[in-house]
Amino acid sequence: MLSDIDGIAIVGLGLIGGSIARGLRAAGYAGRLSGAVASNADAPRALELGLVDDCHAEIAEAVSEAELIVVATPPGMIEPVLAQIAASRRADATVTDTGSSKASVVAAAARVFDTPAYKRFVPGHPIAGTENSGLEAGFATLFQARRVILTPDAATDAAAVACVEAMWRALGAQIARMSPAHHDEILAATSHLPHVLAYTLVDTLAAMGERIEIFEYAAGGFADFTRIASSDAALWRDIVTANREPVLATLDAYMARLQDVRAAIANGDDDRLYRVFERAKTARDGFVSVRERNER
Amino acid sequence: MLSDIDGIAIVGLGLIGGSIARGLRAAGYAGRLSGAVASNADAPRALELGLVDDCHAEIAEAVSEAELIVVATPPGMIEPVLAQIAASRRADATVTDTGSSKASVVAAAARVFDTPAYKRFVPGHPIAGTENSGLEAGFATLFQARRVILTPDAATDAAAVACVEAMWRALGAQIARMSPAHHDEILAATSHLPHVLAYTLVDTLAAMGERIEIFEYAAGGFADFTRIASSDAALWRDIVTANREPVLATLDAYMARLQDVRAAIANGDDDRLYRVFERAKTARDGFVSVRERNER
Repeated sequence: MLSDIDGIAIVGLGLIGGSIARGLRAAGYAGRLSGAVASNADAPRALELGLVDDCHAEIAEAVSEAELIVVATPPGMIEPVLAQIAASRRADATVTDTGSSKASVVAAAARVFDTPAYKRFVPGHPIAGTENSGLEAGFATLFQARRVILTPDAATDAAAVACVEAMWRALGAQIARMSPAHHDEILAATSHLPHVLAYTLVDTLAAMGERIEIFEYAAGGFADFTRIASSDAALWRDIVTANREPVLATLDAYMARLQDVRAAIANGDDDRLYRVFERAKTARDGFVSVRERNER
Repeated sequence: MLSDIDGIAIVGLGLIGGSIARGLRAAGYAGRLSGAVASNADAPRALELGLVDDCHAEIAEAVSEAELIVVATPPGMIEPVLAQIAASRRADATVTDTGSSKASVVAAAARVFDTPAYKRFVPGHPIAGTENSGLEAGFATLFQARRVILTPDAATDAAAVACVEAMWRALGAQIARMSPAHHDEILAATSHLPHVLAYTLVDTLAAMGERIEIFEYAAGGFADFTRIASSDAALWRDIVTANREPVLATLDAYMARLQDVRAAIANGDDDRLYRVFERAKTARDGFVSVRERNER
């Protein structure tokens, strides 16, 4: 149970870490909540927002007394962050993360943790987010009815998994388990590839030299389609880089199909074009049903 | 002024036509509103919804007494619809359309209208829509604070343009004028290409053979990015086909840039990837500002 956890430290108080902190408060967690932020300049605002009880720029200071340590830093920083946690954690601490790629995180954990620490590391990824970032971006209900994927392996300590699951359940999330590789394939397809496509589209249009006018005549569909291109650029560079091979595989499948669609348009093959559009509409309408069912 | 228009006929009562009808009612239009629908089976529901005063499956019956005729049929039907209007319209009637491509519509109008009718034809396109379609899909405020592009040429009758402008102003739209070719370039980039990309992405994922599972783990960003892939497949096949050359030009520009992005990912060129993402984020954030300014 959440209340059994003897102190929780959150490393990184942006959209994800800040939402975890807010959600734990909203769930009534009465233990100590500690936070680590990138610089001393951020600490006063984190405390003012009531995100945590104490806030530190030194990771060791934030995590050393916590039974559960949640890493919510940008993915490019995961290995040095885990190394600092390895050096300062309680011997019985459970560590989890929230990164968007899992094989790369597991490999980093294997490099920096000794065996006892590795066994208490539970890789995780909440499938939730917005295009916003920073201390102000989080909200307590971000994970309500959202999936969290955990990727422990056979060696992972069962009590550590239970501890992480207790936190996510308290935040209203639905927990799934799978292998890191399977997670990375799914997320490459449903999240990383769409970000690459959206960024590339907006960059293409911006380069057409009439940016302002083009955007003047864009409608709601364009706003929705490109929303993810307003996501933090450094974060998404790191995510794509960390999950390079699955992203390239799904990007190649996409580009091959786009070549087919281009040929159908160029050749006036209306039947073929219709079949692609109709299959996609059917699948997407099905996705909406799944999503609405999950939210009930 | 709207109230000066002696009868308005709307050919097609789907999302766009139905929203025009609802909007004209909401704006207090007291003249006769006539509607044409694809089949007799649709007429009772259109009347039940209060969209029009009279409703017909024969275009001639709907348009013959109207001073303003608004064509809101799927783009694939534009030429035969305009031909029927040419044969049944009042001699002083103004005709406008709402199609998503304009050069193809102007060419169709030039083929089926005689010179007096062509001079009273005002090609138009409201930049507004949702992924829904059908008699029930429309709503009175769809065009509020949205752009409508009109593409009259030097020969177009000024009174006909004024009549069409009066209608759009009553619906709350902001009117812009440009050439059909310029319209088609802008819309290819901001609307037609995004639809092609979204349909192709969802079709790619659906073909990965784990459709349901993939969609189980998709988040809000995916829902937004793919919303336009729930649009009517036949409609969008027709739009893309009608605007083929501009769509292919912008698709080629996009695919070239996507190849560059792929190379940056494959080669670990993080700086290049970051520059693309950051330029796109800046442009997209700018688009949001423009949009919010327009809505104020």
